[in-house]
Amino acid sequence: MREPKPLFINEDNLGLVTDFYQLTMAAGYLQNNMNHPATFELFIRRLPENRPFLIAAGLEQALHYLTHLRFSREAVEYIRRHPAFKHVHKDFFSYLKKFRFSGEVFAIPEGTPVFAEEPLLRVTAPMIETQLVETYLLATINFQTLIASKAVRVVLAARGREVVDFGSRRAHGSQAAVLAARACFIGGCRSTSNVLAGQQLGIPVLGTMAHSWVMAFDTEEESFRAFHRAFPENTALLIDTYDTLRAARLAKELNIGDKLLSVRLDSGDLLSLSKGVRKILDEAGLGHVKIMASGDLNEDRIDELMRNDAPIDIFGVGTEMVTSRDQPALGGIYKLVEQERYGRHVPRMKFSEDKVFYPSSKQVYRFLNHSGIYERDVIGVEKEDIGGQPLLEPVMHKGKLCKEPPDLKDIQSRTLESLSHLPEGLKRLRTEEAYTVRKSQRLEELKRQTEEGLRRR
Amino acid sequence: MREPKPLFINEDNLGLVTDFYQLTMAAGYLQNNMNHPATFELFIRRLPENRPFLIAAGLEQALHYLTHLRFSREAVEYIRRHPAFKHVHKDFFSYLKKFRFSGEVFAIPEGTPVFAEEPLLRVTAPMIETQLVETYLLATINFQTLIASKAVRVVLAARGREVVDFGSRRAHGSQAAVLAARACFIGGCRSTSNVLAGQQLGIPVLGTMAHSWVMAFDTEEESFRAFHRAFPENTALLIDTYDTLRAARLAKELNIGDKLLSVRLDSGDLLSLSKGVRKILDEAGLGHVKIMASGDLNEDRIDELMRNDAPIDIFGVGTEMVTSRDQPALGGIYKLVEQERYGRHVPRMKFSEDKVFYPSSKQVYRFLNHSGIYERDVIGVEKEDIGGQPLLEPVMHKGKLCKEPPDLKDIQSRTLESLSHLPEGLKRLRTEEAYTVRKSQRLEELKRQTEEGLRRR
Repeated sequence: MREPKPLFINEDNLGLVTDFYQLTMAAGYLQNNMNHPATFELFIRRLPENRPFLIAAGLEQALHYLTHLRFSREAVEYIRRHPAFKHVHKDFFSYLKKFRFSGEVFAIPEGTPVFAEEPLLRVTAPMIETQLVETYLLATINFQTLIASKAVRVVLAARGREVVDFGSRRAHGSQAAVLAARACFIGGCRSTSNVLAGQQLGIPVLGTMAHSWVMAFDTEEESFRAFHRAFPENTALLIDTYDTLRAARLAKELNIGDKLLSVRLDSGDLLSLSKGVRKILDEAGLGHVKIMASGDLNEDRIDELMRNDAPIDIFGVGTEMVTSRDQPALGGIYKLVEQERYGRHVPRMKFSEDKVFYPSSKQVYRFLNHSGIYERDVIGVEKEDIGGQPLLEPVMHKGKLCKEPPDLKDIQSRTLESLSHLPEGLKRLRTEEAYTVRKSQRLEELKRQTEEGLRRR
Repeated sequence: MREPKPLFINEDNLGLVTDFYQLTMAAGYLQNNMNHPATFELFIRRLPENRPFLIAAGLEQALHYLTHLRFSREAVEYIRRHPAFKHVHKDFFSYLKKFRFSGEVFAIPEGTPVFAEEPLLRVTAPMIETQLVETYLLATINFQTLIASKAVRVVLAARGREVVDFGSRRAHGSQAAVLAARACFIGGCRSTSNVLAGQQLGIPVLGTMAHSWVMAFDTEEESFRAFHRAFPENTALLIDTYDTLRAARLAKELNIGDKLLSVRLDSGDLLSLSKGVRKILDEAGLGHVKIMASGDLNEDRIDELMRNDAPIDIFGVGTEMVTSRDQPALGGIYKLVEQERYGRHVPRMKFSEDKVFYPSSKQVYRFLNHSGIYERDVIGVEKEDIGGQPLLEPVMHKGKLCKEPPDLKDIQSRTLESLSHLPEGLKRLRTEEAYTVRKSQRLEELKRQTEEGLRRR
C-alpha cells in the first residue's frame, strides 16, 4: 500500500525546490561555456497599496539554503530522466552532483525598513549558481518580508498593547505557519501560539483553552474550575462560548484572586464586551486580570478599538496577519544586473514595455535628517562616494557565512528601533505620504549608456 | 558560530506543529479524567466571495500527519520546561512520549466540490488525540482546499486551454510552493514549474528560460541559438525581453521548423502581442508553434483574453493562483460536535453571538437531478435514511489507513468529472447563484434540543 506523502522540504531535496527553467538554463549555460561570474539582485518592484514601507525578513532561511544546497543522487536522477534533458551532456549531471554555492552575498539586515527597487539581496557567483537559487530565495524573502511588513502595521495600531500571532491554522500550510510566526515576531509581535516557533526560535508561546474545552464539560463553571486545577498559577479563561458577561461573572466567582491571569473574548462586539467585562472584573477587585481579544482582527479593527478606548490588553491576531490578507503577495523579483564577459564587468538590464530595471551592482544609501529621521534613500552603484549609510552588508564570502546570524530578538529590536526613525506619516495606516527614493546620477547615467548599447545591436 | 535555521517541518518535530493551547488542554483533560472519545468536525463556516463552490484538497497530507504524529524526546522536554507546565503531573509527559493517533477518520475525497458547513473531515478518538491534531489538520486542509478552489476558476476561464502553475516564487515559503503545485493540479492545471512537485507527485514539469538567459548573451539572436543548441528537440523561447514582435521574427529566422516548440510572452498587451506573434509565425509556416502567455494572470484576465480570441495556447499562472490572491484564506474550523460521557453519546455545540454550529456526528447527502446535475446537499446526522449519495467515507480505522490514497491524477479526474455535474451558474466567474445546502429535519431537531439543554443549565 502506498504511504501518504508529507511533502516536506528537507536538506536532501533542496536541489529540486526550484522552477524547472532554472535547470534548463543551467544546462544551457554549461554547454555554451557561459558559467562566468554574474550578479543578480533581489528587489520589490512596487510597494503594495497601504505599505508605505516594508520590513526586510527571511534572510536567515535564505542563508541556510545557500550554505546547504546540494543535489542528491535521487534529485540528479530525476532531472536526468526528464525528456527535456535527453540531449544534455553528462557533464551537467556531474556538475550538479558536485554543486556547492561558492559566491558572495550582500544583504540588507532583517528588521530594516526598505522600499521599492532597493536590492534586499545581491548575489555574485558563477552564472549557474546565481541562476539556480532564484526560486527558493524569492519564495523565502518575499514571504517573510510580506508578513513582517503586515505585522508591523498591526503592532503600530495596537499602540504598545501586546500583539500575539494566533494564525497557524490559516497559514499556507504547516511550514508557512512557523515562518509566519518568525516574521510576525520580527514585525514586533511579542509572542506566538505556534509551539515549534517557540522551540526553534525562542519566541514566547502563549495559549490557554479553546471553545471545545468549555463545551466538553457539563457546565462552563466546571470547565473553568477544571482548568484552574490543572494550571493553578496561570489561569486564563475563554469566556465567550455561551454568554460572555455571564462567563465573566463566573470567572470572578471562582475566587482565585491573582491566580486568574486573563480572560479571552473571541466573538461578539469586542468594544462593548471588553468594557462590560472590565467593569465586572474591576468591581470584584480583579484589576490585574488582563483582557485578551481575538477573532478576525487586523490593524484597522484594532485601530478602531483603540480609538474607542477598548480596555483590551492583548490582541490575538491570526488569519489577517499570517496571510497578509489585504495584500497576500509581494512582487519580489531577482534580476541579472551585471556579468563578467571577456574579462570585463558588463552591466545588464531589460527594457520590455512595462518592466524596466536598472543595471549593475547597486548599493542603497540612507540619509537621516538632523533629528535622526530617515529623509531619503539613494540607490547608487556600489562604493559610490555620496554619503549616507550603506544598507547592504556582506553576509557570505566564497560560499561561507561572514558572520553569525543575529538573534531573533535583536532583529525585532532593529525593527522597533527603526520605527522611531521613520517619518510619522509613513506609520499611519492610511497615508498619501511616500518616502523619497532616488537613483544616483552615476546610476542614471549607467542605465542610459546600457540601454543605448543594447538598442544599437 | 550559530548555524542559520531552516525551519523545516519533519517527522521528528511534528508534535510541536500545533497551537500551544492544544497542549495545555491536553494536560488538563488528562488530569481531569476527561480523555473519553470525542468527535470533531472540520468545515468551512462561510464560502468566500466569488467561490460558489470549493474543491476539497489536502487530505493525503492530513493522513500522513495522523499516521506519523509523535512527540520526540526533545519535543516533550521543551513542553515540560515551559513555565505553564510547572504543576502538570509527569503522567502527561509519559502520555506524550507514547502518543499514537488511534482514532477513526471519515473524509470527503479530494477533488470533490464542497460547500459551507459541510464537514470535510470527521475525527473520532479519545479527546486528547482529537484536540492535539486541530492546528495541523486545519493548516493543511484549509490551504490546499483554498488553492484547488482558486485553480479550478482559472482552469474554467481558460476553456480547455492549458494552465500551468508558475507560482513557486510567490507562494508563502518553499513548502507552500509544493503544496500549491499539488492543489493546482487537483484544480485542473496540467503542469507545474516546481521540480520537487514533479519528482514527488509525478506532475508534469515545464519551463524553458528566464529573461536573464536572454540578457546574458550579447544579442537576443545568440541567446536563442545557444538555447537551441542545448535543447535541440524542444526549443521554447522567451520573446519579450526587449521587443516582442522583433523577437518573434528572430525566432522565425532560426529556421528550426518543428523543433521550435513554443514562444512565451511575459509582459505588454498580451492580446495584441499574441495576435501579432501568431501572424508572424503562421506566415512563416510555423502554425504548430504554441504561444504561452504569463505575467500576473488570473481567471478574470484569462477570461477577457479568451473572449477576445487571443491565440494563446498555454497560460502560465503564478502569484494570483498560488496565493488565491483575491481570497487568500479559508475560514475552516474544527469543532467538537459529540462526546462520550457517562457511557452516552452527548451532542455538543456552541452558540455565542455570531458563531453557532450544529451538534453531533454528521454526514453530507448529495442529490442529483434526472440529468445528473447536483441539485442539493442535505447535511444530516450519520446513517440517516434520506437518500442521496453520502460524501464522507471512512479513511482511518483505529489509527490505521483504511485504503490506499488515490493517485493525484485520479483526484484531478474526480475534479474535472464533477465539474460536468455542477450547475452551470456555479461555474461562472461572477454569479449570484448559490447551491442549495439544507439541514435534515433530524439535525435541526437535535440542534434545538441540544441548545435548550445547554441554556437550561
